[in-house]
Formats: sequence, structure tokens, C-alpha cells
Amino acid sequence: VISSESISQEDVISVADLGEFGLIAAVRAVLPPDPPGVLGVGDDGAVLPAPDGRVVASTDLLIEDRHFRRDWSAATDIGVKAAAQNMADIAAMGAVPTALLFGLAVPGEIAAAWIVAVAEGMAAECDRAGAMIAGGDVTSSDSVMLAITALGSLAGRDPVTRSGARPDDVLAISGPVGASAAGLALLLAGLDVLPSASEPELLRLVAAHQRPQPDYAAGPAAASAGATAMIDISDGLVADLGHIAEASGVCIEVKSASLPGTRALESAAARLGADWRDWSLGGGEDHALAATFPPEATLPAGWTVIGNARRGAGILVDAKAWSGDAGWDHFRRAGGFPA
Amino acid sequence: VISSESISQEDVISVADLGEFGLIAAVRAVLPPDPPGVLGVGDDGAVLPAPDGRVVASTDLLIEDRHFRRDWSAATDIGVKAAAQNMADIAAMGAVPTALLFGLAVPGEIAAAWIVAVAEGMAAECDRAGAMIAGGDVTSSDSVMLAITALGSLAGRDPVTRSGARPDDVLAISGPVGASAAGLALLLAGLDVLPSASEPELLRLVAAHQRPQPDYAAGPAAASAGATAMIDISDGLVADLGHIAEASGVCIEVKSASLPGTRALESAAARLGADWRDWSLGGGEDHALAATFPPEATLPAGWTVIGNARRGAGILVDAKAWSGDAGWDHFRRAGGFPA
Repeated sequence: VISSESISQEDVISVADLGEFGLIAAVRAVLPPDPPGVLGVGDDGAVLPAPDGRVVASTDLLIEDRHFRRDWSAATDIGVKAAAQNMADIAAMGAVPTALLFGLAVPGEIAAAWIVAVAEGMAAECDRAGAMIAGGDVTSSDSVMLAITALGSLAGRDPVTRSGARPDDVLAISGPVGASAAGLALLLAGLDVLPSASEPELLRLVAAHQRPQPDYAAGPAAASAGATAMIDISDGLVADLGHIAEASGVCIEVKSASLPGTRALESAAARLGADWRDWSLGGGEDHALAATFPPEATLPAGWTVIGNARRGAGILVDAKAWSGDAGWDHFRRAGGFPA
Repeated sequence: VISSESISQEDVISVADLGEFGLIAAVRAVLPPDPPGVLGVGDDGAVLPAPDGRVVASTDLLIEDRHFRRDWSAATDIGVKAAAQNMADIAAMGAVPTALLFGLAVPGEIAAAWIVAVAEGMAAECDRAGAMIAGGDVTSSDSVMLAITALGSLAGRDPVTRSGARPDDVLAISGPVGASAAGLALLLAGLDVLPSASEPELLRLVAAHQRPQPDYAAGPAAASAGATAMIDISDGLVADLGHIAEASGVCIEVKSASLPGTRALESAAARLGADWRDWSLGGGEDHALAATFPPEATLPAGWTVIGNARRGAGILVDAKAWSGDAGWDHFRRAGGFPA
């Protein structure tokens, strides 16, 4: 059995050395066995349970140097991140992630151990979410790309779309946001390599960027609590609230004083001379959820009210139209990372 | 509305010009509306029917210059091919394709019209198969890549895996194979550009390579007829039969004299001094199906017996172990096309 450890010690076996079928075998060796009665990886298609007669599906691409960097993130972290961002989309519909399918395109000279470690990261995050890996494809290419499709189950709940927010709904988020953006800012400033035993919180922010750990249960809990609209915060809080505002035909107001902070965010902001609320408002990739609820709803544990919906259009932050960095467009600013 | 026609006439609007959200809007404009009661493209996830409580899922990557060439295939054909090869995997499980999700990674300088035309091709093939497009992602990258996930419904049937073939089963294919390989050979020989009003069959072979049109109903029909094992012929007939032989623990015998030919295959072989049976045995990408059936089964219309299973291992062609080009490994021979 080829494991990421044994390969990295030899430091020589490339994807081209292994070949397509050898690589598939190496990846399959690190995936957990299929649950009983479920047909997973290894045939033309997987056969997966969809117990309430519906399946939720979402797909995403991750491109090297646009969505991840191999010199900034360990391969396992890249696998975790790829899985997490897709399964967060499933949670944002009010569903429980059940299965993941992946495509990996890599140049032949990449170490097979790198691919195996990516698969290990995906498998670990699927395990954390209670989902299985149900299929995969590997192929050669000039650059590294991951394609992920996540499936999920609503377990009888109605899906929560982006379009159901109504005037007077309260706006809430499932947890603090901005840690990933803060971690990225620390990376860009080179502060992740400083001796920092005294600043473990800063390293945790870097880790939050490299290896997001969404709370998948927050989505189904919000759906059960009557959420009227919901979205995964991936492009940035304000940018993603913009999608809810547009789809629902409402204005969304955010009160920045209500944004939940953390000591880590405050430390990083002090270190970099920044305002952590800018990370919360503009940064994406935490994969917390934002949702609107009827005014009378009892919010699930962990959710924090940060504003409300009202008649109108667009986003107001502290009663002003938001003019900051409103999210990340992968073409207009291609080649760099969101600042 | 941006259509592939209007853009190609202006010949200037690139993906980078449109931006991510503009491109998504342009692509969505050419997709058919969601069926009633189904939530498709435009939210964090799609919500799709899975009427018998199960969903079949398969995923594939297509990489420029490995799986397709923009100078050999029109954008719509690339979209058709991407959709077809994935939905054929669904059919090979005995299921009906129901939905497709796609990821498109493209350099910013690519014409937006090219992307829109790829989406039109995917939509056209989904329409032919009776499936919907349920989600997508577009992003920038250094090279063109498509990632496709197809979903399907068994409608109460048992899935047909690769592992159920038994000694004495008959081996059959759902139609002639080799047209795609013949078309590729014609392209490589430059024969697609010769004046060929007298050779329309050759052009049809080239079209078969550029735009495969699988018979999706053949899979469910074979499942209903009692198929014991089934596979989509994508890497080559013998190579793919090898997967059945290995998974089932049997030997598969092919009688080349039983392979169904066509006048087009014979014409191309005569033109190129080749043996069309080599294309049938070694060529992939027709996306016909191969299946084994109990000896007493009545085969569905269109299926042709070409051999049988027996005790043992591996593949015999005309009683000899197959020694030809046994399929395509995307890493070992990266950079070229199967010959």
C-alpha cells in the first residue's frame, strides 16, 4: 500500500511513475471503505441513498494559485478545504452532506504523495461531516485543479434558498467570520513564520485560512428553526448577503457593532494595524452561514443576530451603502488573491 | 442576452471582459429553465428528485489537448462530448441520466462565446438524454478544463456493476464500436479536410469522434433484461472488458468475427490501410455499452453478442490473450492522443 508517508520518504515516485491506474489504486487505498449497502468508488457510477426522495447537489472548482497555493497549504489542508467549501454549500441549503465526488487534474511530475495526501484531507473532512467519498477521477494536466461535487440530504426538510428573505426578518450568522481573511493577511505579511509561541491565536487564524472547519450542523439547525433564506459565506459576508438581497428582493442591513469578534481577530488586527471588522465584512472562505429568520424565530445555538432585512434593495452597513471590497471575482482580478 | 452567435460576430468579448458573474449570467441564459418543482442552477445547491430513494453519481474531468482539442472540435461538440461521456457512465449502471453539474476552468483571454457554446452543447446533450443542468461553476485557470458530474435514477432497478459476470454468461455490446477511433485516425491523417462529398461516411466517423451520441436507453434496457455486469466503453472495448473480468473474477472471450461492422468503418479502414476490428477492439470514446447476460436472457434490441465469460482471468480475443493497445492511460502517455 502506498501511503503519503512512505512515498514522501522516498521522495521520488511521481504521478507519471505510478500511471493513472496506479494512482487511482494509491488514492483508493487511503479512502475509507464504503458504508454497508452503498456502492461507492470503483464502478462507472456510485449508488447512494437519497432517503427522502431528493438529493441536494453542488459543484466547485479549485485552481492552483487562485484558490490555493502549494507553498502555503499542506496537501491534506487543500483536500480539507476543497471538501469543506463544497459541503458548506450543502449545509447552506439546510441539508446534511452525504457524499463527495472529486476530480483531480495534476501534472505528471507532481509527487504521488501529494495527491494521496489531498485525498486523505478530503476523506478526513468527509469523515468529520459524516459524508462518504463516492467517486473520483484523476487525469494529467498542465496545472493542478480540483473539481468537487458534494451531495446531501434534506431529511424531509424544505430547502432554504437565497430568495426567501422578507422585510423585518432578522439577519444572523452561524459564527464569527473573518478568521480566514485575517489568516490570509498574516500569511501575506509573512507573520506566519515569526516565532510566535506567544501568539498561538495568530497561528490559529492562519490555520483557519488553510483548513476551514465549517459547522455543518448549523445549516440543518437553521432550516429547522425556520430560516427564510440562507447562504454559505464564501466570497465575503457583504458580497454573499448581496446574493440574498438580490434573490429575495429586499435590502439587508448589517450593524457592524453586532459582528461577533474573537480575541484572535483583535490580536491580528492590532498586529497588522487593521480593523478586524473589515475582515468580517469583506473576507470569505470561513464558510460560516448567513441566514434570515422570521422576527419571532428562536435562533439555534451559536447563531448571532447582526442585522435585519427591510424593504428596498442592496446592502447597508451601519446605514451606509457598502463601498468596501465586496467580494472576489475570479476573472477580473485573476492571478492574485483577495487582499 | 449574450448568445454564442452575437459574441462570435463581434469577436472581442473575452471571459475576462465579462467577469465571473457576467459569464455565469451569459451561461445561464442559454440553459433551459428548471423543470417545475425542481431547484436548479442559481443557489448554493440544487435540489433534485431521487424518486426511488437512491441516486447514481459519476464524475469526470476533460482537459484541453488531452481529452479534446479546440482546433479539432467545435465548442458545442466539446460540450456534447463532456456531457455524453458522463451520462454514459450513468447508463452503464442501468440508470437514466437525470442531472448534470459542470465546472469550467478557462483562461481569461478565451472568448466568452466559446464558453457559452460549450454550455449550449452540454444543454443539448442533456436535452437528448432527458436530463437537466443542475449546477455549475466557472473560474479562471491557465488551461481549459471541464469537470462534469452526472446524476441518475435507477427507477427501482438494481444497479448493474462490473463485478457480476459469471462463467457461461454471454457478452454483448449495445452497438458497433470503433467509429470514434476511426474518426480520430482520419483526423490524424488529415482526411477530414479532403473533398469528400463521395465519402460522407468518413465525415460521419469524424463526427462520431467529435460528438458521440450514446444510446442512453441501452443501459436501463440491459438492466431490465437481466444484465449481470455492465461498463461504458470509454478506454477501449478490450481495456474496459478487462475491468469487468477483473472485478468479476472471470475470463472474457471476444470473437472478433462477431464484432458488428459498418460500411463507414470498412470504408475508413480501406482508405487508411487499417483493420477496422482494431478500432473496435482498442478504440474508446464511442460510449457504447458492454454487458454480460445470463445464457438464457433475451437481449434488448440493438445488442449484439460478441463473446462470453468463462472460468479464468483476463481477456481472450479469438482464443489468444490480447496483446494490442489495451486502452489509454492518461499519465503514461500524457501529452498525446491514443493512436
